[in-house]
Amino acid sequence: MTRLSNPTLQFWFEFASPYSYIAAARIEREAKVRGVSVDWRPFLLGPIFSAQGWQDSPFNLYPAKGRYMWRDMKRLCDRFGLPFRRPGRFPRNGLLPARIACLEASRHWLPEFVRSVFRANFAEDRNISEVEVISEILVSLALDAQSVISRANSAENKEYLRRQTERALELGIFGAPTIVVDHEIFWGNDRLEEALEFYQSAIKLK
Amino acid sequence: MTRLSNPTLQFWFEFASPYSYIAAARIEREAKVRGVSVDWRPFLLGPIFSAQGWQDSPFNLYPAKGRYMWRDMKRLCDRFGLPFRRPGRFPRNGLLPARIACLEASRHWLPEFVRSVFRANFAEDRNISEVEVISEILVSLALDAQSVISRANSAENKEYLRRQTERALELGIFGAPTIVVDHEIFWGNDRLEEALEFYQSAIKLK
Repeated sequence: MTRLSNPTLQFWFEFASPYSYIAAARIEREAKVRGVSVDWRPFLLGPIFSAQGWQDSPFNLYPAKGRYMWRDMKRLCDRFGLPFRRPGRFPRNGLLPARIACLEASRHWLPEFVRSVFRANFAEDRNISEVEVISEILVSLALDAQSVISRANSAENKEYLRRQTERALELGIFGAPTIVVDHEIFWGNDRLEEALEFYQSAIKLK
Repeated sequence: MTRLSNPTLQFWFEFASPYSYIAAARIEREAKVRGVSVDWRPFLLGPIFSAQGWQDSPFNLYPAKGRYMWRDMKRLCDRFGLPFRRPGRFPRNGLLPARIACLEASRHWLPEFVRSVFRANFAEDRNISEVEVISEILVSLALDAQSVISRANSAENKEYLRRQTERALELGIFGAPTIVVDHEIFWGNDRLEEALEFYQSAIKLK
């Protein structure tokens, strides 16, 4: 069976997810040096965790794991030269920015928007569930915040995000970030380079 | 406060743990090229998981995570040139080999024994909870299997392993493998190189 189209490299992320912050900050540069383009896929971990019986982040449900994660985040951010401040509240609800990131119109400013929201959450300890915080980020990108937010909250766009999250479940995604290439999934910032290499070899095989 | 002794690099592992197989196969060579010696620390994940409310491996409790782990294991074993066959039963009980690995007398043959047991579990699909399987491994190392097993099952040695596992909990260990240097912990085969680098810089600071 031949496939005419190239596979895409999908970057699935959630704004509440600490390791998604690191991967989102790194992926564009790492992809660029390899000539790969990134398909940004926002989704919500809430329904994914619910499906596993969790009503909270596993980093809260399992305190030893949570303590380790914050220590590991600090070390990784130091290593990658990223600012980091442990959020005063975790996890923060990333519903509004996730909806914005779903907008077709966001295509041109999406990566910068995504990185700004992650930075607000994990480097500036700001509440990314607040309209004011997200508006400020949109304005900093020279966008009409009110108009963007209004479109993000349309029934059609809400439904789009719901379907994205369902699709994540169908793909076998159980955490964030996850990179998907064809039917292969790579979980975590730790697998970023491996996923990019896999994508490159998949392209060559076509 | 000065400390006169150098920190040790402790490698905490469990024979039922897939990623411990990979790390155990890699650590001695990676440590050697950096001039680091490894302090092997067998422990049991059962009580650690129990403390988190799990009566089974999270890879069984959370099927999407489990499916991913086996795929990831295959990819990593290919990458590191390690043989791999998904065990017909998971997790296998690693109590007997863990007790053997606790013996003071095992010092000289421990790394080879550990690698052989992991290989039996994750490359040969053999039942490492069986005395016959473990005896065969001991004999292959030119050891008196009956004598080793008898000492491993002494009340004193059983108690030693119990205390090791309690110590793991106290250190904040929540999974395997975990590398401990001073009060810093590094979880997973993915952190092997980082832990070794941390150890080297900790030594230099003394």
